[in-house]
Amino acid sequence: MRDVYLVGAGQTPFGSFPERSYRDLFAEAYQNARESVDSPPDPEEIDEAVVGSLGVGGRQLGLSGPAVTEHVGLHNVTCSRIENACAAGGFAVRQAIQAVKSGMADVVLAGGYEVMTDMSSDATKYWLGVSGETEWERLTGTTFAGVYAQMASAYLDQYEATTEDLSRVAVKNHGNGAKNPKAHLGFSCSLEDAVNAPDVAAPLNLYHCCPTSDGAAAALFVSEDVVDQYSDERIRVAGSGGASDHVGLAERDSYTSLSATKAAAESAYEGAAVGPDDLDFAEVHDCFAIAELVAYEDLGFCEEGQAHTLLREGRTDPDGDLPVNTSGGLKSKGHPIGATGTGQVVEVFDQLTGNAGERQLDDPTLGLTHNVGGSGGATAIHIFEQEVAR
Amino acid sequence: MRDVYLVGAGQTPFGSFPERSYRDLFAEAYQNARESVDSPPDPEEIDEAVVGSLGVGGRQLGLSGPAVTEHVGLHNVTCSRIENACAAGGFAVRQAIQAVKSGMADVVLAGGYEVMTDMSSDATKYWLGVSGETEWERLTGTTFAGVYAQMASAYLDQYEATTEDLSRVAVKNHGNGAKNPKAHLGFSCSLEDAVNAPDVAAPLNLYHCCPTSDGAAAALFVSEDVVDQYSDERIRVAGSGGASDHVGLAERDSYTSLSATKAAAESAYEGAAVGPDDLDFAEVHDCFAIAELVAYEDLGFCEEGQAHTLLREGRTDPDGDLPVNTSGGLKSKGHPIGATGTGQVVEVFDQLTGNAGERQLDDPTLGLTHNVGGSGGATAIHIFEQEVAR
Repeated sequence: MRDVYLVGAGQTPFGSFPERSYRDLFAEAYQNARESVDSPPDPEEIDEAVVGSLGVGGRQLGLSGPAVTEHVGLHNVTCSRIENACAAGGFAVRQAIQAVKSGMADVVLAGGYEVMTDMSSDATKYWLGVSGETEWERLTGTTFAGVYAQMASAYLDQYEATTEDLSRVAVKNHGNGAKNPKAHLGFSCSLEDAVNAPDVAAPLNLYHCCPTSDGAAAALFVSEDVVDQYSDERIRVAGSGGASDHVGLAERDSYTSLSATKAAAESAYEGAAVGPDDLDFAEVHDCFAIAELVAYEDLGFCEEGQAHTLLREGRTDPDGDLPVNTSGGLKSKGHPIGATGTGQVVEVFDQLTGNAGERQLDDPTLGLTHNVGGSGGATAIHIFEQEVAR
Repeated sequence: MRDVYLVGAGQTPFGSFPERSYRDLFAEAYQNARESVDSPPDPEEIDEAVVGSLGVGGRQLGLSGPAVTEHVGLHNVTCSRIENACAAGGFAVRQAIQAVKSGMADVVLAGGYEVMTDMSSDATKYWLGVSGETEWERLTGTTFAGVYAQMASAYLDQYEATTEDLSRVAVKNHGNGAKNPKAHLGFSCSLEDAVNAPDVAAPLNLYHCCPTSDGAAAALFVSEDVVDQYSDERIRVAGSGGASDHVGLAERDSYTSLSATKAAAESAYEGAAVGPDDLDFAEVHDCFAIAELVAYEDLGFCEEGQAHTLLREGRTDPDGDLPVNTSGGLKSKGHPIGATGTGQVVEVFDQLTGNAGERQLDDPTLGLTHNVGGSGGATAIHIFEQEVAR
């Protein structure tokens, strides 16, 4: 099947913008994505659009896909909305890739948006809860942080990692986010700050939890048949994997590993004919600090129970052998749910095209994105390869 | 690109089942779809699943795709939920087709569900309203029936059709639905009944509006490379088109035509290399009677303003030259939002395989499905061809 290329990606700043609409945010992301393409497609050249959003916050509850594409002037474009909780954006990217590979579309826009900060904190708590399982988690009073806290408890009990290691995730990602002008919480923090923060859901404290954010992101994918028209870059979608799992934590075989991540990773690595050792960098889903540790293991960056050693040795720092979350991750860059997965692609695009500013890695050629829905009910993973030596 | 085949499709009865869960309904539809396949795929052979649902009725608000696939035992399957208001199911089918065509999957399950009758009628009204535009329709108090009533008013004013022609849609579709054991309102009605019903939103009366229903539907699509393993039938996806439009009626150029339907139809006919005259039958989106008249014109079954002549001449009756909504349509069969688009595919499958019982047409080979989101913000159209002479 034909190859798919990423020719542009852009996003709004992630942050607290309760005065902005979802349409306004999406339009800015779309414009930034267009401007990042060497020769941007005309609106009528865009064959399809896929928009990721959780979208239960009281706005355009039905048809928000067409509502944002009409707003940016994509008349009659094929468009639908994908929802897979916090992985909506990653699955929107997957659908865009399939649309191009299918031969039914040559140029496809993937994007996502969320507006979360114009609600009371109780409403936000409820809204986030919908990403958890309904009957046994949400309706029994378990918050979404509480679900991840159970994973963290089991992990810390089972392995040698400590709560200080959870805080190390925050220190690393805030350090990266401090260099990202689009980050929601773009400040660095000390290990002392991150260790002494107040509890949210023990053992997770405030620095172990990502913020609720507003924002949008967009990316443009094209077929190998037309890539020359648009781009001098050659960023190929080398692999893509998706998988699901039991939505409720209690139904799963393990509290310390996500089988959806393992299955999606296997598929993505196999498609790309690479392994974790070949990666130059990765953006992983660190909604809570424990999620980044678990991701290291499920993605094959280290053995089970060894994630903390990567952190302690600085191997996932920007100057380590496998930098993770150079963007700041969900922790510092922010987590506007539907925008997050496509936002990860923005960082990969910026890194692979040498446009990551202060965060720029040294000529990376292979990057991975990892986007998780709920506490692991769905995972989308994509691998991108820069084919042009820089 | 490789061809895609429909090897099975099934559904629950559509109706009022407030005591049943969305998972329970989906499981029944999935089981029926499996049983309709000559040699059903094992669960682990299903590579992907796409689930359509509006899903804002207070159940599993995030991740309901994985929630239903886990319930039927599809462990780790790639799964996401599609939302495009009432066209969620049609777009789930489209994504399944693209997934197979992309070469990334060989066997894909498309499906949809909705539970609508366990709410108060006010809540239902609100819920349906979310398929309309938010700021200028829903929040200003326009009900969803009211939006279609504006289309009907404009249509009746502009053309020769009368409210009696709207009632003729009900008479035809109830006549068909009376022969469908899966229909929600499976009774026939007289023209007198349908003319004298109480108003809902003038000029639309009760018989001009479909019911709110519960139900689920599912269909299995496979690639040409594996179709021999599963099916003796050869029902090929000949064409597929999708398009969007302004979500709000007031933004559009016309109140009497849906540009999303026209654009999607053009794409589907072109892909299938057929025209409307080649079709043997069609399932069209008759959420309100006016929608069926407009669909005839947008799909090219007749000239603009002439839809009523097809009805009066009986040409879309089961014994006419282009039977429409042999299933009973949304009007009689019912409209469990996310299940509707896939439910249309069930009727096409039953007709093309000779399993439509009392509704069976005489050896049809080419059928079309037409699924509309909101009042025309999104449309998905698919054309299916039976390649094996029966």
